[in-house]
Amino acid sequence: MFPRYNVIVVGAGHAGCEAAAAAANLGSRVLLITMNMGTIAQMSCNPAMGGVAKGQIVREIDALGGYSGIIADKSTIQFRMLNLSKGPAMWSPRTQNDRMRFAEEWRIQLEQIPNVDFWQDMVKEIIIKNGKANGVVTSLGISIEADAVVLTNGTFLNGIIHIGEKKIGGGRTAEKAATGLTEQLIDLGFESGRMKTGTPPRVDGRSLDYSKMEEQWGDEKRGKFSFKDIKLPTEQRCCWITYTNQQVHETLKEGFEQSPMFTGRIKGLGPRYCPSIEDKINRFAERDRHQIFVEPEGWRTHEIYVNGFSTSLPEDVQYRALTQIPGFEKVKMFRPGYAIEYDYFPPMQLDLTLETKLIKHLFFAGQINGTTGYEEAASQGLLAGINAHQRINDLHELVLKRSESYIGVLIDDLVTKGTEEPYRMFTSRAEHRLLLRQDNADIRLTPLAYELGLATEEAIQRVNKKIADTDYIVKYIKKTSVQANAMNPILVERGSSPLTQNIKMFNVLSRPQISIYDIATADTQLKELLQKYTEETIEQAEIRVKYESYFDKELEIISKMKKMEDREINPSFDYNQLISLSKEAREKLIKIKPRTLGQASRISGVSPADISVLMVHMS
Amino acid sequence: MFPRYNVIVVGAGHAGCEAAAAAANLGSRVLLITMNMGTIAQMSCNPAMGGVAKGQIVREIDALGGYSGIIADKSTIQFRMLNLSKGPAMWSPRTQNDRMRFAEEWRIQLEQIPNVDFWQDMVKEIIIKNGKANGVVTSLGISIEADAVVLTNGTFLNGIIHIGEKKIGGGRTAEKAATGLTEQLIDLGFESGRMKTGTPPRVDGRSLDYSKMEEQWGDEKRGKFSFKDIKLPTEQRCCWITYTNQQVHETLKEGFEQSPMFTGRIKGLGPRYCPSIEDKINRFAERDRHQIFVEPEGWRTHEIYVNGFSTSLPEDVQYRALTQIPGFEKVKMFRPGYAIEYDYFPPMQLDLTLETKLIKHLFFAGQINGTTGYEEAASQGLLAGINAHQRINDLHELVLKRSESYIGVLIDDLVTKGTEEPYRMFTSRAEHRLLLRQDNADIRLTPLAYELGLATEEAIQRVNKKIADTDYIVKYIKKTSVQANAMNPILVERGSSPLTQNIKMFNVLSRPQISIYDIATADTQLKELLQKYTEETIEQAEIRVKYESYFDKELEIISKMKKMEDREINPSFDYNQLISLSKEAREKLIKIKPRTLGQASRISGVSPADISVLMVHMS
Ligand SMILES: Cc1cc2nc3c(=O)[nH]c(=O)nc-3n(C[C@H](O)[C@H](O)[C@H](O)COP(=O)(O)OP(=O)(O)OC[C@H]3O[C@@H](n4cnc5c(N)ncnc54)[C@H](O)[C@@H]3O)c2cc1C
Ligand SMILES: Cc1cc2nc3c(=O)[nH]c(=O)nc-3n(C[C@H](O)[C@H](O)[C@H](O)COP(=O)(O)OP(=O)(O)OC[C@H]3O[C@@H](n4cnc5c(N)ncnc54)[C@H](O)[C@@H]3O)c2cc1C
Repeated sequence: MFPRYNVIVVGAGHAGCEAAAAAANLGSRVLLITMNMGTIAQMSCNPAMGGVAKGQIVREIDALGGYSGIIADKSTIQFRMLNLSKGPAMWSPRTQNDRMRFAEEWRIQLEQIPNVDFWQDMVKEIIIKNGKANGVVTSLGISIEADAVVLTNGTFLNGIIHIGEKKIGGGRTAEKAATGLTEQLIDLGFESGRMKTGTPPRVDGRSLDYSKMEEQWGDEKRGKFSFKDIKLPTEQRCCWITYTNQQVHETLKEGFEQSPMFTGRIKGLGPRYCPSIEDKINRFAERDRHQIFVEPEGWRTHEIYVNGFSTSLPEDVQYRALTQIPGFEKVKMFRPGYAIEYDYFPPMQLDLTLETKLIKHLFFAGQINGTTGYEEAASQGLLAGINAHQRINDLHELVLKRSESYIGVLIDDLVTKGTEEPYRMFTSRAEHRLLLRQDNADIRLTPLAYELGLATEEAIQRVNKKIADTDYIVKYIKKTSVQANAMNPILVERGSSPLTQNIKMFNVLSRPQISIYDIATADTQLKELLQKYTEETIEQAEIRVKYESYFDKELEIISKMKKMEDREINPSFDYNQLISLSKEAREKLIKIKPRTLGQASRISGVSPADISVLMVHMS
Repeated sequence: MFPRYNVIVVGAGHAGCEAAAAAANLGSRVLLITMNMGTIAQMSCNPAMGGVAKGQIVREIDALGGYSGIIADKSTIQFRMLNLSKGPAMWSPRTQNDRMRFAEEWRIQLEQIPNVDFWQDMVKEIIIKNGKANGVVTSLGISIEADAVVLTNGTFLNGIIHIGEKKIGGGRTAEKAATGLTEQLIDLGFESGRMKTGTPPRVDGRSLDYSKMEEQWGDEKRGKFSFKDIKLPTEQRCCWITYTNQQVHETLKEGFEQSPMFTGRIKGLGPRYCPSIEDKINRFAERDRHQIFVEPEGWRTHEIYVNGFSTSLPEDVQYRALTQIPGFEKVKMFRPGYAIEYDYFPPMQLDLTLETKLIKHLFFAGQINGTTGYEEAASQGLLAGINAHQRINDLHELVLKRSESYIGVLIDDLVTKGTEEPYRMFTSRAEHRLLLRQDNADIRLTPLAYELGLATEEAIQRVNKKIADTDYIVKYIKKTSVQANAMNPILVERGSSPLTQNIKMFNVLSRPQISIYDIATADTQLKELLQKYTEETIEQAEIRVKYESYFDKELEIISKMKKMEDREINPSFDYNQLISLSKEAREKLIKIKPRTLGQASRISGVSPADISVLMVHMS
């Protein structure tokens, strides 16, 4: 009934969609099997993409030829660049999205990819042949063969939904859980764990009094995720902000006795940085209010996502607490919040390509690896899809460096350090974050995608032009002087000390208060020059000039570390012969098999002393 | 947590959506509870509305203030008026719809109705107080009170999905079944039964070779369901026709041993007139081919609905048989066809208002009453919603007559005759079908809706104008003569005998080959007159003139029958005192409690002799 495929992707969530698209675009014949074709690319929780560190990931996905950015752009109801008041490394694009549109656009997009076939069914078993994944068996009892299998089961493996004291089997509200796979994987020798996450109630926007809340509009000059030319929706929708208060907290506390978390009914750990509201009032007892973001679920629906109010308390407690929030006095709920517990597989069982160490040609991506978030899932999916294709065709793998991308940081963290609680990305996790900006994701990654065959000729030319144009502007600014008398009025206006003589534009632009356009106001030649370039290029040049010294320092650090970072360790290296290694270090090194000294140094339990031992031995 | 509602509607399928909208628009506070807010108004099977007799129902729903027509119009990808070569009573509008758009438009529409609240949950119990429905209990254990409850559970009650020898619990593919309600209703004394229905596999349009099929385009001059001004999508999509053949049939037969129907694993009866393909080749063994309609599921998706190929044979048999259909040689399946078995409640347990006889203020509508089809479900929902509101406010009920609507025929059939197999509407079920046309649904029903408060001032004025304008044109045509010499060339061209003298336009228009526009070509005054009217009005006038004698005869029959039809029987009439009644008639009369002699005469088992006994006694 089915031909043999090159790659089977199990699950059409954010990870699965990217995995299928990437492998197919590289030339693999892909079968995407998912339990419900009506919920492809469903946003399980908040209808939003990006945000701090996550927005950077979406830009990286786009630069690498993935689709999450394009889909998010097409379904945007509000765009904001977060942290604009901070340095450019912190600028983070974020969109509110139309939930239905997002899912539909992904589905339509996938259908446009010639090499992607679809099958609605539940995968319950992996077929293994000679230690390699060789296909899957579905709940209908169908065996389908493939050269590689990518598992992206999200929160569905033995999923249990909790609301107060009630427990319902399910992978997401109103959807069935997936069974069978965990059990087989454990039999094969995999270690599995349990995690949990939660979602807030959804309410009827018609029942809210927005006059009691603060409006939050999108950016007037709106950006987008994708570096490509995307037709954006023209309008934006308003969101709102309101706050909880002591009364709300007191009401919530009345439900604590029935809380599945506090009573220990939920065993799995939840995402520390997306805590439930009960967690927040418990852990931050000193805070008398918490922010609530009131976010529409789409262009036309009245359904509202109550961001910041994730909870698994009994639904009547949820309701009573909500009514005490300003603007929510007459709230009507559509669906209660809930928590979900699911199986994950500690990611130290994976190689940096996301292939499992135990079973070759088997890849894991997304929430199944203990992460949380669409962006984290999508980026892993993309890399797993790429590496599955490369692997079965004996082509070079794609492992991104920590110094070149957040995705590299994400995967290195997962594989090297593992995670005991749902892992989400932060800027602080990236030691080289100054260089890993949203504005240069294309410069960092599109060349890699182009080399693989995932970026078009057009895309790489765009990037090359951006680089060349930026260089030109930067050079111009470095070598050209500005007239003091023309510049001074602007400097004074900006509260910056006036010039006593003509100086290089470069030196003026280094002042924090001054923008490249300020200089162009004072210098018609620069003004004319800039007219030839896109805003994006001009911004890039400005960032390069303003932060050059920081960037240079960062690059220096990277190059110094490079020796250790790139120093490869033979995969069959026998750590047992090194008696001076600590016991813990030896065990971890044997388990994780780091590829480089750099990776080894990040393993928890491996001390600098252990690294010295290794270095001495290797030299 | 919830206020007391006036009406709770359980289930947001086609019946539930109309019920909620109608009760709310009449002024009731309505809570619509459904298991998954992501699947509101899901088209479970074919993405199409209307068709023979069903198209008339959609027009009637629209005339009565329901939304199914509007939603179908907004999501139309192809429109066809079926049977245009037959008399106007057979003309039947039918649309292909974008499945996702249809569901989304319904959802957005419902959200616009101020009195409709939503709650996602499963109802597992009806609260009963003093013999009346007084609310529901949900699977989360929430009790919600209401003055009336409308059950529209569709195919979800203890639903079991069958594919070959496999059985999966579910209310629809990838959705959970609903449990608890049947058991409670049986405990309360209701009788329940089991029915089944089926759906074809969905395939990947990219894998089909359309050059081997016949194209089927929509009408160039496209119509619509709604009498209101609806902005229609501008384009239409093509559909295709292909055929099965002996080889396909032979392949399908290989699966008969595993067929859940033929092996008796499915107990419930299926829809006789939507048979599965295995049923067709079994029952019509002499036919060497069956038509297959190849219908896109939406504007942009490649998913294809294989209309005519409903099946619950094993998926590999489905697949192999499909590949033998011309154009399907390289077919790829998205999801297999399946059959579903579910609980229904024989509708003789209902009153003509759709209220149950056992429990007051409890209404049943849709597939739960043993019907099949979105249109049948929607129309019952509309009536149940209306009557629930009227009932709890002590307002007059709405019972439509068989002589005024298909909906009247449908409900009278269900309640009076019951049904042992899934009931679907046909023109042949309506004895007065000549009058129950799609073109006059507004004239027949909008005045009733207006009186209730469901039709707007604008709607009734539109109807009144249509009536007045039509009358004017008809009168004009009756009294005005046409010049023989001007008319004759056209008559000759149309193959109709030329006139020997000037005669009334009326007589010319009565000729089947001649249209009103033909006469207008010969008569400038008529031409000018018609320019003042809408096409719809002109068509109405033409139909009236052409078929006047038939309509008059029909009206005469209705008026003759009226005496019996309207002759009311006291609900507490004691049939036991009439010893000359046959035993079967007595039992049935006691059970069904017909309201009129007319209704009594349609009860199966009640003979004309029994009716005479009744008449004698009542006079
Ligand atoms: C209730 C809830 C709350 C959440 N809250 C947050 C939050 O606050 N913050 C945050 O960042 N993230 C949150 N998330 C997580 C976020 O939704 C996920 O990180 C993201 O969706 C993961 O993407 P994925 O592709 O790995 O899996 P999913 O999006 O879960 O997709 C998995 C897909 O696989 C399919 N599937 C599963 N098993 C099988 C099988 N055996 N056979 C075939 N198909 C299968 C499913 O049908 C589904 O389509 C939440 C998730 C849930 C469910
Ligand atoms: C597989 C399949 C094949 C079909 N084939 C055909 C066909 O060939 N021809 C044809 O004319 N018709 C067919 N139908 C029937 C058609 O889909 C139905 O007639 C129509 O959808 C019935 O509408 P409804 O509103 O009664 O119920 P449905 O459309 O089934 O909707 C029922 C709704 O109620 C909700 N619900 C159920 N129980 C509960 C509960 N306890 N609590 C809360 N919510 C609940 C469900 O979630 C759903 O939203 C088919 C249906 C199925 C499933």
